[in-house]
Amino acid sequence: MQQYEGWQEFKNKTNEEKAKILSKKDGNLFDLIYAQQFSKDGLEELFLLADTVRKIAKTQKGMNFLRTILSDKRAMLFFVQPSTRTFLSFLNACQILGMQISEIRDTTTSSEVKGESPEDMIRTFSSYVDLIIVRHHDEGFAERAAWTLNFHANRTIPVINGGSGKDQHPTQALLDMYTLKRADKVEGKKIAMVGDLRRGRTVRSLCRLLSLYEGNEIYFVSPKEFAMKQDILNFLDSKGVKYTVTDDLESVAPQVDAIYSTRIQDEHDKDKESSNVDISKFCITEDLINKLKQDAIVMHPFPRRYEIDVKVDKDPRAAYWKQGRNGMWIRIALILKVMQRDKVIYSY
Amino acid sequence: MQQYEGWQEFKNKTNEEKAKILSKKDGNLFDLIYAQQFSKDGLEELFLLADTVRKIAKTQKGMNFLRTILSDKRAMLFFVQPSTRTFLSFLNACQILGMQISEIRDTTTSSEVKGESPEDMIRTFSSYVDLIIVRHHDEGFAERAAWTLNFHANRTIPVINGGSGKDQHPTQALLDMYTLKRADKVEGKKIAMVGDLRRGRTVRSLCRLLSLYEGNEIYFVSPKEFAMKQDILNFLDSKGVKYTVTDDLESVAPQVDAIYSTRIQDEHDKDKESSNVDISKFCITEDLINKLKQDAIVMHPFPRRYEIDVKVDKDPRAAYWKQGRNGMWIRIALILKVMQRDKVIYSY
Amino acid sequence: MQQYEGWQEFKNKTNEEKAKILSKKDGNLFDLIYAQQFSKDGLEELFLLADTVRKIAKTQKGMNFLRTILSDKRAMLFFVQPSTRTFLSFLNACQILGMQISEIRDTTTSSEVKGESPEDMIRTFSSYVDLIIVRHHDEGFAERAAWTLNFHANRTIPVINGGSGKDQHPTQALLDMYTLKRADKVEGKKIAMVGDLRRGRTVRSLCRLLSLYEGNEIYFVSPKEFAMKQDILNFLDSKGVKYTVTDDLESVAPQVDAIYSTRIQDEHDKDKESSNVDISKFCITEDLINKLKQDAIVMHPFPRRYEIDVKVDKDPRAAYWKQGRNGMWIRIALILKVMQRDKVIYSY
Repeated sequence: MQQYEGWQEFKNKTNEEKAKILSKKDGNLFDLIYAQQFSKDGLEELFLLADTVRKIAKTQKGMNFLRTILSDKRAMLFFVQPSTRTFLSFLNACQILGMQISEIRDTTTSSEVKGESPEDMIRTFSSYVDLIIVRHHDEGFAERAAWTLNFHANRTIPVINGGSGKDQHPTQALLDMYTLKRADKVEGKKIAMVGDLRRGRTVRSLCRLLSLYEGNEIYFVSPKEFAMKQDILNFLDSKGVKYTVTDDLESVAPQVDAIYSTRIQDEHDKDKESSNVDISKFCITEDLINKLKQDAIVMHPFPRRYEIDVKVDKDPRAAYWKQGRNGMWIRIALILKVMQRDKVIYSY
Repeated sequence: MQQYEGWQEFKNKTNEEKAKILSKKDGNLFDLIYAQQFSKDGLEELFLLADTVRKIAKTQKGMNFLRTILSDKRAMLFFVQPSTRTFLSFLNACQILGMQISEIRDTTTSSEVKGESPEDMIRTFSSYVDLIIVRHHDEGFAERAAWTLNFHANRTIPVINGGSGKDQHPTQALLDMYTLKRADKVEGKKIAMVGDLRRGRTVRSLCRLLSLYEGNEIYFVSPKEFAMKQDILNFLDSKGVKYTVTDDLESVAPQVDAIYSTRIQDEHDKDKESSNVDISKFCITEDLINKLKQDAIVMHPFPRRYEIDVKVDKDPRAAYWKQGRNGMWIRIALILKVMQRDKVIYSY
Repeated sequence: MQQYEGWQEFKNKTNEEKAKILSKKDGNLFDLIYAQQFSKDGLEELFLLADTVRKIAKTQKGMNFLRTILSDKRAMLFFVQPSTRTFLSFLNACQILGMQISEIRDTTTSSEVKGESPEDMIRTFSSYVDLIIVRHHDEGFAERAAWTLNFHANRTIPVINGGSGKDQHPTQALLDMYTLKRADKVEGKKIAMVGDLRRGRTVRSLCRLLSLYEGNEIYFVSPKEFAMKQDILNFLDSKGVKYTVTDDLESVAPQVDAIYSTRIQDEHDKDKESSNVDISKFCITEDLINKLKQDAIVMHPFPRRYEIDVKVDKDPRAAYWKQGRNGMWIRIALILKVMQRDKVIYSY
């Protein structure tokens, strides 16, 4: 398969270096590929934008205004890795802004002829639409798409990473931070991350973004088999973020301002290792939630299985349903940014 | 899999009891799950609404007006059981009213992780959209969705049943009644139901709705192997509706005002029983249609195979193509009702 | 399976005869099924329309105007043969004009019950939408759809052929001609067609349309195994179009105004014959492009594999990316024609 020159060179850079190259166009956010592209100021701007949009969205008149903002633009959702939640969240975000959508959700309808290169495919898509949102099982697919359009195409349109391989899922990290922010749990707070910390990409990205704010302390609560990897611990050390590694959820619970629970990702098991681990100690039960502070919150990226008892759903501290809806609002803000229509919102 | 409390208790009620619980919100129709939710007045109101919408739809200006009515709202079509006709009918109904649509038509893209409960899935969907239209192979899926959103979610949105399991397909019954109504065949009329009456859910629901009007008489015309089940006959007895059970279509044809023909549902055969039945006597041929009254109509829920000869299509009494299009208009009326925007129509 | 009378008789006519029958309604283009439906005047009118639309599309105000033109209409994309490019091109064309879309891209969701005839399926679709765009693996499917709606349905709506069987793909031919036209390579020019000429349907249709203009000369450049078939050579003879058959691309390259490169369609191989042919002599390399005239252009219907080196992409003579986008604009023009809204464009 043919390849443009320069790809290997770009690919071998660090995410920090890549982020600098892809981040900006005329001083504005253009592609969104890595969580590392955000500064604290960038996050705060995005949160304010999302808050403003949802206020406008409260009335029929406001919704009809929002629908005019990108009514002249079209987006493609290229989601060849199945994902209902992220897909629906992006789709409805685009629709609220009046964008029209091309969906590709299945490789069998998209790769009609074997041997077409990803670069050709992406350039073809870019002939028809004004924004590509991509979710792909190949690590680095989103960055390759952005790189191709930036450096080899006449028609350069933004790319948003909706999850690409095991590593990066930046909009999940954004919605998690936005949920913490709305509950005022983002600065000088204690946050427990619970469950499969080794294989969950959401907790990894969340650590990076939390490090942008002052005075936070993180508790990594997991069976030792699923402990957070050393690279993130080193990163937190380098940023001066305090953390504790433990397997004792019961002792941690009363101290923290937020619990971020995650699912055991047994689909990544190599040897059924998950079935040998007693996960019951890491579940959020009715008993456990009663030990939390009155104003603490419980989050989860969903889907859940047994990590959170459904009886907890009624508790006002259960924030995971709001979290899903927050994802839609923060993605609207992000789309407004990369399409450079954010200023129109403040004119309402 | 986890389950909310109270489901088993609700599930064991009769459809009549369930209908009362789910029907109304602030005195208005909210969820539409069972044909039993409609009174004669409710039907008449819906028919008038559909008639009014289609008058407005005759001009470009009218169509553009209709498209503003729900332009601030979004619907999800969750159709995991394949159904082209019902799907397209609902989709275009939503589009005519300006709603934006999320489609899920395939379980492989919707159940990314095994073990998520239907309740969690439905609540997730309800985070993004304002209406869920559901078609599912599991009996009771639609009522479970409505029950979950009514009694366990903060964001309560309406659910419309687009066909759920073997039993209920209320919007098919509505469009059948609407077709009869437009041909003035709904009160004091003789209606023949022909074909596979044992396994067709449409004829069962139609009997229930016909019983709401006065003076109708039903002829059940089928091979004895596919005769209407006793529960419906008992129901008609209890409502004082006259009926005749026969296998002689030729004698019945000249007497009736409408024929409702149905397909032999051999996909439900347990032992190829359909292949042993002579169905030719129950087909609508050119010969047979010439025996009908001049103003009688012939209906069929489609798809058809050989039950109706294509030569009959040209006859003015063939109403089955109109019937399909009636489905779109009555679904528009229904969506306007559950979204509480019906009054806007009369302001045009 | 049942069939309307008259189909076999229609089917056995020549494309020229069929084109006359299906072409017009009240003097206007209605169905678009065959490339043969176009005269030179018809093409020129379409090209002017496409040029006018793309000028309007340059501003946000213009795009919002375009979106009102068919905002009262709905189209169905019935694409049961996979095709990303043609699908996306049509989809975005419809969206730019404000049409709402029903997609069917998969036979498993569309043929819920075996035994439904294509005629019934098409008539069902026509109950819900105002335009059907069809791509199908069965030769003649599009013409059968158009024939059914024209001669057997009350609700007659236009059908556009998006590729049907091996033979006809008229909108590809239109976009190829439009690309040549925009580069002023359409009259009195030398055009080389290169690659798999025997099995590529695009080059066949292009020959027909090129014959409508004066003074063109065609070079058929291919391995002898994939030479253009005799029927097209005979056709060109009958129209007085000069042509040369050769396998020497290097000698031809400096003489021509345009190269139309095509992929070896090895998916149609019966006995791996493609693997025995040396295709390297027929590839567009950096070396070769340097031999072309300064203002020549290189086209390709895509997807490509190795027929065109990616290093050629940067050369200003590479026209294949523009070609894809031209497809969207010419399809917009075509939809405006068959929906009889073309005059609105000139009112802007």
